[in-house]
Amino acid sequence: MNATAPKSLVEIAYDSELTRQCGRVLVDALADHLDGVQAGDGLVQRWRDPELNISDAAGWLEAAEFSGPDGVLDQFKELLELSLQRGQNLNHPRCVGHQVPAPLPLVGLFDAVTTMTNQVQGVYEMGPWGIAAERAVIDRIGKQIGYTAGEFGGLVTSGGSLGNLTALLAARNEACPWVWGDGNQPHAVTDEAGMHDEGQRADARMPVLVVHADAHYCIDRAAGVMGIGKANVLKVPLDEQRRMDVSALEGLLASLRADGVPIIAVVAVACTTAVGAFDPIDSIADVCSRHGVWLHVDAAHGGAVCLSRRHRHLVRGLERADSVVFDAHKMMFVPAVCALVFYRNKQNRFRAFEQTAPYLFDPSAPDMSEYDNGVVTFECTKRSAALGLWAALSMFGLDLFEQLVDRVFHVAQQLYDLLDAAKQFEVLGQPQANIVVFRFLPEMLTRQSGDTSDAASLKLSQLQLRIRRAMLESGFAYLTQTTLSGNAYLRCTIMNPLTDESQLSKIITEVNRVGPLLWTELQETGLATD
Amino acid sequence: MNATAPKSLVEIAYDSELTRQCGRVLVDALADHLDGVQAGDGLVQRWRDPELNISDAAGWLEAAEFSGPDGVLDQFKELLELSLQRGQNLNHPRCVGHQVPAPLPLVGLFDAVTTMTNQVQGVYEMGPWGIAAERAVIDRIGKQIGYTAGEFGGLVTSGGSLGNLTALLAARNEACPWVWGDGNQPHAVTDEAGMHDEGQRADARMPVLVVHADAHYCIDRAAGVMGIGKANVLKVPLDEQRRMDVSALEGLLASLRADGVPIIAVVAVACTTAVGAFDPIDSIADVCSRHGVWLHVDAAHGGAVCLSRRHRHLVRGLERADSVVFDAHKMMFVPAVCALVFYRNKQNRFRAFEQTAPYLFDPSAPDMSEYDNGVVTFECTKRSAALGLWAALSMFGLDLFEQLVDRVFHVAQQLYDLLDAAKQFEVLGQPQANIVVFRFLPEMLTRQSGDTSDAASLKLSQLQLRIRRAMLESGFAYLTQTTLSGNAYLRCTIMNPLTDESQLSKIITEVNRVGPLLWTELQETGLATD
Repeated sequence: MNATAPKSLVEIAYDSELTRQCGRVLVDALADHLDGVQAGDGLVQRWRDPELNISDAAGWLEAAEFSGPDGVLDQFKELLELSLQRGQNLNHPRCVGHQVPAPLPLVGLFDAVTTMTNQVQGVYEMGPWGIAAERAVIDRIGKQIGYTAGEFGGLVTSGGSLGNLTALLAARNEACPWVWGDGNQPHAVTDEAGMHDEGQRADARMPVLVVHADAHYCIDRAAGVMGIGKANVLKVPLDEQRRMDVSALEGLLASLRADGVPIIAVVAVACTTAVGAFDPIDSIADVCSRHGVWLHVDAAHGGAVCLSRRHRHLVRGLERADSVVFDAHKMMFVPAVCALVFYRNKQNRFRAFEQTAPYLFDPSAPDMSEYDNGVVTFECTKRSAALGLWAALSMFGLDLFEQLVDRVFHVAQQLYDLLDAAKQFEVLGQPQANIVVFRFLPEMLTRQSGDTSDAASLKLSQLQLRIRRAMLESGFAYLTQTTLSGNAYLRCTIMNPLTDESQLSKIITEVNRVGPLLWTELQETGLATD
Repeated sequence: MNATAPKSLVEIAYDSELTRQCGRVLVDALADHLDGVQAGDGLVQRWRDPELNISDAAGWLEAAEFSGPDGVLDQFKELLELSLQRGQNLNHPRCVGHQVPAPLPLVGLFDAVTTMTNQVQGVYEMGPWGIAAERAVIDRIGKQIGYTAGEFGGLVTSGGSLGNLTALLAARNEACPWVWGDGNQPHAVTDEAGMHDEGQRADARMPVLVVHADAHYCIDRAAGVMGIGKANVLKVPLDEQRRMDVSALEGLLASLRADGVPIIAVVAVACTTAVGAFDPIDSIADVCSRHGVWLHVDAAHGGAVCLSRRHRHLVRGLERADSVVFDAHKMMFVPAVCALVFYRNKQNRFRAFEQTAPYLFDPSAPDMSEYDNGVVTFECTKRSAALGLWAALSMFGLDLFEQLVDRVFHVAQQLYDLLDAAKQFEVLGQPQANIVVFRFLPEMLTRQSGDTSDAASLKLSQLQLRIRRAMLESGFAYLTQTTLSGNAYLRCTIMNPLTDESQLSKIITEVNRVGPLLWTELQETGLATD
């Protein structure tokens, strides 16, 4: 190539010096942004209508024109600033919404190694160090759960929903080994130990999944995906703290076994998304063990309590689960997504999928299948998602993560106390985790009095939704909502360790300011406008 | 907080100045690494046994101890250098293995916005600009496919396997609407137009999936996951170029319709993973249309040819497909993973999953479900994966991507020509894409002569695998293998636009050097050692 010839578009796009220049701009912009957001002076989000944002983003594509290397640097900067301005600011101390954390900045930075060098994880060869880091992390966290070294195994996958599906596939293929080959048809089970004959019989039954009534929607979704059918997802009733009722579970499993129904798994939760309830896993494990049923625990959110000496009692018995999903991108504060799946028996990793891919796996090195993740993860091309977590664990040890869990649980308790002390709020019980559920009560209603008619309840629910939307659109704070027994509630999850009591007080003050205004508006306009 | 009190671990972990310092170290290390790797002087990979790498990674976690802010910066640097040294170098010009690209560096950098600020995509509120960018990209690329503006829709998901599953779920729920509720049981179809009665009958049949015989393993996997059963995945025979045989498809669909078997979809491929064969989509669409069957095209690898005026004829008719998977993390050269799923009819986005999640979706703003991705993507928490692609399209336009496709196709043709001219190689036909499949023939065997016994074939296959492994372990080049009709072949995919003829010649020279040595070794030791 002629040294004086102008560079092609392709050469410019891969130029390492332009990369360095853009990278420097990037780092300063990100650090400045983090600094500003964490101070909490500005808005959590500058709300804009989706169509306006889409139109702006599309405008850039329509106007796209290459403007030389210098132009690229300028455009990079402009696009970067725009993207930072228009995003949701999870690092803001008044961002107390979903179970998505203010990410640890050094993990975010370290993840750029994966992104910039495109380390992937279908086969060991393609991301050897990413796979090594992932293995080390799985091993370290699995021991913390209480699993026996050498016996358990795990994997990293693209989110909790996929993690739950993966583990439930392993459970299904264990309980119903005919499905992968012949499909998920009704099947007769001939005895209580789970033995089955291979033919179809008149008393054949569809397999069922037995789940916590408040399980995350991805469990129902997994059943829909697997072709189990919503009708075959059996919900176990809850106790007064919205935990699985263990005696109801016992009765249900006994009755299913008596009827010869294939049971794929029991799905317990640690903790629930709606209110943060932790199931009594130890007792549930007793029941499952008695009936020979696979116990899966969706610990996507709460798994991290096993890193805290103070809170690990909440997952007592977790090491007895046949499979566990644990999202590091929730209470280990790493960027989305890095979901960990654990199997008590590491051989069960190979149950979920039963396949070969000749171009992928090298038959001359069969031992590599132990390290070629594609055989145990749903994904073929999969980002090396645990490298940043491995780096953070290497730099800070488990101590940082214990402190993070303890801190957000403590702040949630502070929020509960503040709300409980303020007479305009009804709080839904002591928080079991870092999730607080409550309602704003208008002046005329107090906790033990007032109109309890359906119309009044509906209006009260509408009020909560309007308060939440007002907070969202003003950008002052970010909260979510949930519906329990038909009533809407406000819901805060403390996912930023820099959120403190003073910021919580500001949120409460603002709810107290907008609540009455919105209530008056609702009284005047009625429900017809909704 | 006392300004002079020592900072807690949590405060240090979120410190914006430490972030800035680590970020600067990161950018320089990444730019230096890119520069060195692209020069092609060093190795593609420093091969190390998995257990050695795992042991090293675990060692860091065992020794983890917080060493103050300055210590963190030093450790960050050390962990970074280690991770770069131990990775696979996709930007190396002799990395010609899997369909995973040398990523565009500016896309990798821009993606750090997503990672560092943790923009996610279940609901619009949580990643408003990420969703806007994603919508703009879907719209731009969909038009390039040839879909009608306003009618088509799409989404971004975590990889091609998940994309294919998502589209096939929509197809299944369209063809077999009873499954989500009642499970994937045998069902009678009463007429050829696909009408069915709801009861089970004696002639009830399990639904089937009709697929290209060389389809990616994720299609079989999707069938296994969905509980369809491997026995109900019907493979359509191939023509001599390993494309779907259209008349065989016609016969199969006619016979299935006559028998009243529910047909979920026909899965065509553009192009195949094994050899890069493009199906005749236009003719396949004619057949599917005649029989009223959903046409899904797995264009994970080849979709990007629609960006090239020279090569877009290869996907003629793609705009007739009911659904298409198109991995931007393949021939659009963005880091893993950014898989695009398109539906010809945008309403079909909502067919794949049929659910509500009260805590997630705000009933006071029902219009938002158009922008709340969780209802159309498998994932709930999902990384904003298209932001970097949007930025690259904004800075360089579609021109860059056309040049990238044209370039890698051209280099693959150069590789074919070099191999075809060298007498020690047998090349498997002209490349249809950027994938070249070939075998090294030892001196005693030439193309039209030699021992064709099973033992000789097996030995020849062993030789290819050993050559590949030797290249991998020396780190000189990275190739893959595939098995066709029981014989192993070497396989190169050109996924780095900076790979050129001189580097390809070096690879061929090296295969010519190690091939005879390994052949001699194989003759001496025999197959017993394998």
